[in-house]
Amino acid sequence: MRRNPEPVSTNRLEAFSDGVIAVAITLLVLNLAVPQPGRTQLSHALATKWPSYAAYVVSFATIGIIWVNHHAMVSRLREADHVILILNLLLLMTIGVLPFATSLMAAYLKQSSGESLAAAIYAGAFLLMSIAFATMNRHILLTKAHLLAPELSESRRRQILARSLTGLVPYVIATPLALVSPYVTLAICGAVAAFYALPLASGG
Amino acid sequence: MRRNPEPVSTNRLEAFSDGVIAVAITLLVLNLAVPQPGRTQLSHALATKWPSYAAYVVSFATIGIIWVNHHAMVSRLREADHVILILNLLLLMTIGVLPFATSLMAAYLKQSSGESLAAAIYAGAFLLMSIAFATMNRHILLTKAHLLAPELSESRRRQILARSLTGLVPYVIATPLALVSPYVTLAICGAVAAFYALPLASGG
Amino acid sequence: MRRNPEPVSTNRLEAFSDGVIAVAITLLVLNLAVPQPGRTQLSHALATKWPSYAAYVVSFATIGIIWVNHHAMVSRLREADHVILILNLLLLMTIGVLPFATSLMAAYLKQSSGESLAAAIYAGAFLLMSIAFATMNRHILLTKAHLLAPELSESRRRQILARSLTGLVPYVIATPLALVSPYVTLAICGAVAAFYALPLASGG
Amino acid sequence: MRRNPEPVSTNRLEAFSDGVIAVAITLLVLNLAVPQPGRTQLSHALATKWPSYAAYVVSFATIGIIWVNHHAMVSRLREADHVILILNLLLLMTIGVLPFATSLMAAYLKQSSGESLAAAIYAGAFLLMSIAFATMNRHILLTKAHLLAPELSESRRRQILARSLTGLVPYVIATPLALVSPYVTLAICGAVAAFYALPLASGG
Repeated sequence: MRRNPEPVSTNRLEAFSDGVIAVAITLLVLNLAVPQPGRTQLSHALATKWPSYAAYVVSFATIGIIWVNHHAMVSRLREADHVILILNLLLLMTIGVLPFATSLMAAYLKQSSGESLAAAIYAGAFLLMSIAFATMNRHILLTKAHLLAPELSESRRRQILARSLTGLVPYVIATPLALVSPYVTLAICGAVAAFYALPLASGG
Repeated sequence: MRRNPEPVSTNRLEAFSDGVIAVAITLLVLNLAVPQPGRTQLSHALATKWPSYAAYVVSFATIGIIWVNHHAMVSRLREADHVILILNLLLLMTIGVLPFATSLMAAYLKQSSGESLAAAIYAGAFLLMSIAFATMNRHILLTKAHLLAPELSESRRRQILARSLTGLVPYVIATPLALVSPYVTLAICGAVAAFYALPLASGG
Repeated sequence: MRRNPEPVSTNRLEAFSDGVIAVAITLLVLNLAVPQPGRTQLSHALATKWPSYAAYVVSFATIGIIWVNHHAMVSRLREADHVILILNLLLLMTIGVLPFATSLMAAYLKQSSGESLAAAIYAGAFLLMSIAFATMNRHILLTKAHLLAPELSESRRRQILARSLTGLVPYVIATPLALVSPYVTLAICGAVAAFYALPLASGG
Repeated sequence: MRRNPEPVSTNRLEAFSDGVIAVAITLLVLNLAVPQPGRTQLSHALATKWPSYAAYVVSFATIGIIWVNHHAMVSRLREADHVILILNLLLLMTIGVLPFATSLMAAYLKQSSGESLAAAIYAGAFLLMSIAFATMNRHILLTKAHLLAPELSESRRRQILARSLTGLVPYVIATPLALVSPYVTLAICGAVAAFYALPLASGG
């Protein structure tokens, strides 16, 4: 292996990121287990699994939105460099772990033990992902402003970054609230995803 | 996380959608379980699993056709916007859930309990996907007609949309028919997929 | 859903096919199971799993080569049409099933019952894939010659097609030979993959 | 199947490689198992699984870096040929096997039997991958220098290759050291990944 000092086109950065995000979002379905036939009534067995469906929808929506934001972040770049590639890998690592956090949340939400920890890990994983995203965005907007195309004024760049940081807030709140109730944590995470999809309601 | 108000090229929308659809269609194979050696004769064990193969073929063909249609829908767009991205995510979410619905159908088709519910969920998942597709298509063709390239007359746009809506009909019928027989539901879903591949028979 | 009568660029056909083939080839690794700690010695447990490794290598190489050939086939096309998309889906369906056939082969190769059937299914799956490939190639080269770019003489097109058909022969032989010995079947499949990689030996 | 003698654009080589690497890196998450509810305390159950997290991070980072390097290697090429495609497939095969090696490492790291073998296989898999990478790089830089764009002087090419070969060294050391301690092996592999991400610390 070797370090890569040359500038890098953003095309393949996008292609690889799209691949990882697409696989992670689709692997979420493995979290939905088929109840074994003949044990209990299927309708009952499926109904008791509602945390799996809720966690699936919230995680799918959240990963989907991070993809939309990733797209916007990278599309501002004329080219990438080694640091951007590494920060992108860190972001992808936090996204890649989400199917596990989702399974954990789904398995423990209704349990009487471990449910708070599972929910804290779930929201904590989203928080980690948001931090990785904001870190990459900060590096691009502040340190590597010369790689942006078209150029952006500093106030505009700080405005974009501020929005990235605002996105952390709900997860900062949702993570410790898991101690109060894992349902509240799940609800906050779901509300965040719904909020970002809201322009939909406005007819766009 | 933040909202993305800027216009978006359709390239990465396509790349991400292709990724999700490609992963979902390929994950269907995990539904085909290898019988444990030494238990029963392999030929017998495989033969009893025919619902898995039937569900695999029908789901693969259906997802494949939705990909063809997705390609046609997006290729009409000059650029995308936030609402289109969100509607696309909703469509991808319904596609992402199909490996689960397929496993459910395969596991319950021959059971004497739960088979109707499983088949209703199977056709219902295709129905949901078709609704998501028609909703996105409607939004593009009616609300965002100015993003189309080349421009299409309103009658042409309404014609395309009508075909999208026609595609819902078989699933509207197949879903409640699961109560009568899950085999009928599977047959209808298979017939829909075969119909869309039909030009093949005409020598193209 | 609806039929798509318009010509289609080959870019997205390639992107989707690349996605499916990439997922299928990478899912092969799920076939390699980690022995449970503490049961038997790890070295022994891994050694007895050699059919898994052999099947992994042969399947990976075969899918890899079909990707190379798919690339060559599609790169000759100026644009695609509905029939080509459907034939491509059929080809992808036969590729998508290979992780299952590989698992089956790996699980039964050393068994005293079912090993012939498993091997016949394994080679039969490759045969099916080769038939789907030759069918698509035949359609492109003979029926849709006007979509080729650059144009190819009929003799050249028949020559390319003949090579596609030649590729079927080893699998036609390997499939029934599974009755004699599953090891012979595996060896033939492996030899085919090695043969196509041979230019490597010539220093290229 | 058939051999493909024509030159090949690097676009699809990249797209396919990106796909395989993206799937392999994302499949690593399947290695993170959700503890069964109700058995032991979740915090305890998760804490005992730390080798899974460590192996996940090291493998994710290593595959990520090989992607960065693969990108740099292929971006130097004007076009590819059959030998390059085959060498690329070999490289992808070694990458595709990493989720298995990672699972093995995670499952055995804390065991009192098999832990050395598992760690040797883990570092050995990285070594194999690095050899496949260096072989492909060597072929491109020395045998196929006429396919490079822009042209590179021989000294520059030998310099790039030397760095590829340097990358082998840590794994050559880490593999036999598994006999001493699997933790040392894991630490070396982790240090290699961290080293390649280091420019990060320098502020880029």
